[in-house]
Amino acid sequence: MTTPPPGPARTPLTASGAHGEPTREPDGAYLDHAATTPMSAAALAAYVAEAQRTGNASSLHSAGRTSRRAVEEARETLAKSLGARPSEVIFTSGGTEADNLAIKGIFWGRRAQDTRRTRVLVSAVEHHAVLDPAFWLAGHAGAEIVLLPVDGEGRLDLDALRAELAAHAAETALISVMWANNEVGTIQPVRDVVRAARPYGIPVHTDAVQAVGQTEVDFAESGVDAMTVSAHKLGGPVGVGALLARRDLALDAVLHGGGQERGVRSGTLDAASIAAFGVATRHAVGCLPQRAARLRALRDDLVARVGVAAPSAVLRGPEPAGDRLPANAHFTFPGAEGDSLLYLLDSAGVQASTGSACQAGVPQPSHVLLAMGVPEAEARGALRFTLGATSTEADVDRLVAALPQVVARAQAAGLVSGRAMGGAS
Amino acid sequence: MTTPPPGPARTPLTASGAHGEPTREPDGAYLDHAATTPMSAAALAAYVAEAQRTGNASSLHSAGRTSRRAVEEARETLAKSLGARPSEVIFTSGGTEADNLAIKGIFWGRRAQDTRRTRVLVSAVEHHAVLDPAFWLAGHAGAEIVLLPVDGEGRLDLDALRAELAAHAAETALISVMWANNEVGTIQPVRDVVRAARPYGIPVHTDAVQAVGQTEVDFAESGVDAMTVSAHKLGGPVGVGALLARRDLALDAVLHGGGQERGVRSGTLDAASIAAFGVATRHAVGCLPQRAARLRALRDDLVARVGVAAPSAVLRGPEPAGDRLPANAHFTFPGAEGDSLLYLLDSAGVQASTGSACQAGVPQPSHVLLAMGVPEAEARGALRFTLGATSTEADVDRLVAALPQVVARAQAAGLVSGRAMGGAS
Repeated sequence: MTTPPPGPARTPLTASGAHGEPTREPDGAYLDHAATTPMSAAALAAYVAEAQRTGNASSLHSAGRTSRRAVEEARETLAKSLGARPSEVIFTSGGTEADNLAIKGIFWGRRAQDTRRTRVLVSAVEHHAVLDPAFWLAGHAGAEIVLLPVDGEGRLDLDALRAELAAHAAETALISVMWANNEVGTIQPVRDVVRAARPYGIPVHTDAVQAVGQTEVDFAESGVDAMTVSAHKLGGPVGVGALLARRDLALDAVLHGGGQERGVRSGTLDAASIAAFGVATRHAVGCLPQRAARLRALRDDLVARVGVAAPSAVLRGPEPAGDRLPANAHFTFPGAEGDSLLYLLDSAGVQASTGSACQAGVPQPSHVLLAMGVPEAEARGALRFTLGATSTEADVDRLVAALPQVVARAQAAGLVSGRAMGGAS
Repeated sequence: MTTPPPGPARTPLTASGAHGEPTREPDGAYLDHAATTPMSAAALAAYVAEAQRTGNASSLHSAGRTSRRAVEEARETLAKSLGARPSEVIFTSGGTEADNLAIKGIFWGRRAQDTRRTRVLVSAVEHHAVLDPAFWLAGHAGAEIVLLPVDGEGRLDLDALRAELAAHAAETALISVMWANNEVGTIQPVRDVVRAARPYGIPVHTDAVQAVGQTEVDFAESGVDAMTVSAHKLGGPVGVGALLARRDLALDAVLHGGGQERGVRSGTLDAASIAAFGVATRHAVGCLPQRAARLRALRDDLVARVGVAAPSAVLRGPEPAGDRLPANAHFTFPGAEGDSLLYLLDSAGVQASTGSACQAGVPQPSHVLLAMGVPEAEARGALRFTLGATSTEADVDRLVAALPQVVARAQAAGLVSGRAMGGAS
């Protein structure tokens, strides 16, 4: 079985498709929707309509005001879809920038109010877009990073958080715990985090990049002070995202300049991407119940059939019926390297991931699995399968047809490389 | 005369137009191309083709590699167009982010090498995307900002720079002098800045956002260490830009996370916008001689006819025949407020700017004009006219037809408000 060679886009753009219709079906069995998912035809049409206009949303003349109107409409759409007020939406260039703005911006803002506040509490399974800004602050701005432990399914240890707060609340600048994990799909007890933090007045940030469109996310109801969202994970374009932030949150800017977005995020507003983001979010949230149910059934089927096709596979993260994103499945395959599995599957027309796309090519076992207590040797054999709007039973068929041989070959390769390493020592 | 109400985009997207053809003509006389200029049809077609593919450029599977290939092709195009190596191109979300990365990244990188390096030398006429990061460093990281003076035409005082370096080279982290000014169009002596800095080994950054596509810009030949470019000023999309940076430059990241772009700029690569950026840059640089000549002739005509229509207007910045961007004209109108002029012109279907779009609505005279020695009262009456690919003689006709009445009304309003203020004191 071979993948058709990736060619240029073949589907002409039409704005006439159903709202969530993808611009085109990905080639082969694309099981990496958590890395990025097809842009919907409606979102792309919104992008094109806006990109054909000329006007800087900061300009005062009519062309500028027209552009500004598109931005403000999208802001209202996004806010309404996510349970926020329009004035709480700060558009950014994506999830990574929004996470950087949250971690650094809240740290600086809170420390300016009280210089004792140097502790940054983050779960040990955060995305690198949260962890790396935190560690940068440790190296450059005197922050102390506290990695909050998780259990064997990747779920935050709330008792550890409470003990930490009881001991160090006065020195704590912020807490960041993701809404749902990008690798193993664990939905975190964000409301409990807020409940623990509230008595101390410590702000809580949550990276909801993987959660929006897969599970119900309501900014106001959750009680968090700041929340990261990204467009290209839910049918919008790459290159745009947002930080939702309460107006009373002490938040410094990370990108300085023209003073756009209430002075917190400078840079010309990308009206076309923002308009597309609004369209995609409205659709992703609007059709959530149906989509989640469909993906959950497909994912449950995938999990069951992988278990038959590769009996040695170990499901990581919560049980499918538990606090887990409906479109996420994650396994380790004993004795196999994740990269081998990935490449062999790719040759068979199945596209998956060893973990976060952002860490692809990094020859280290996932920090998420290690934090869950998975031994390093087992963590090396990780594969993540994530579903999206274009996923069908045929994708699962293709995966389970290819899997036995792929796993056998990867395990054989692992055995050889294991021997070679043994021989060298 | 009234502007047609701004409506939805009317021109259908076609990829068949000439390379630099805009997606559509702006409404009325759009004389604000320095704020943003129409996205070319070819750039939009490149965006659409790439956005219809699915794949995260960091993913290792075939969909990811296809996306990566589009990014790397654009990187090569951009590098070739601007006299750089592909490995020197760091894609960002735009000019503001690239300026932030340059100012903060070089500051932190250089100070890590030697803690004495705290001085940041910037010209007094830089864009806020350079000035504001510098002042933020002063407030948060112990930087000392040195505002380098300019002459009456906005040109850097090289003697002042040399004197500053002679006195404080060992404490200097970096120098940032823009290639050309966004308000008055002054082309700066960037090569002389490099010549002054080189003996001390001090890196030079230049914001070339306004220059690329209007005047010849060659990264390697200029000798600068880092250079900011932006797509939407030259026919590409909003939301993407680049910092060109020599590989041996000490440069810290501003956005941390997945480690994309050699670890200096994390965030999912926006392959569609980057592909469009490549197409737009190749065209803008490729047709530079013809475009610059055409815009220069049109601009010279505009300057001459504004002088006739509004004899009190004072041209600011260098003479049209001098070191000035070919598409820039800038005037002050004595006794008139820039905002009044802008709104009255807009009502007459002519879209201009009082200065930087990013500072629009800020009721303060331009820091650029003040640095040039323009008295505050005169600086308040500023209007910038900037041309682009869609500009025609008809735009100039419309401007000069409207101008006499607009200036008279703005001056009358200024007189009234001046009296009112006098009466209140």
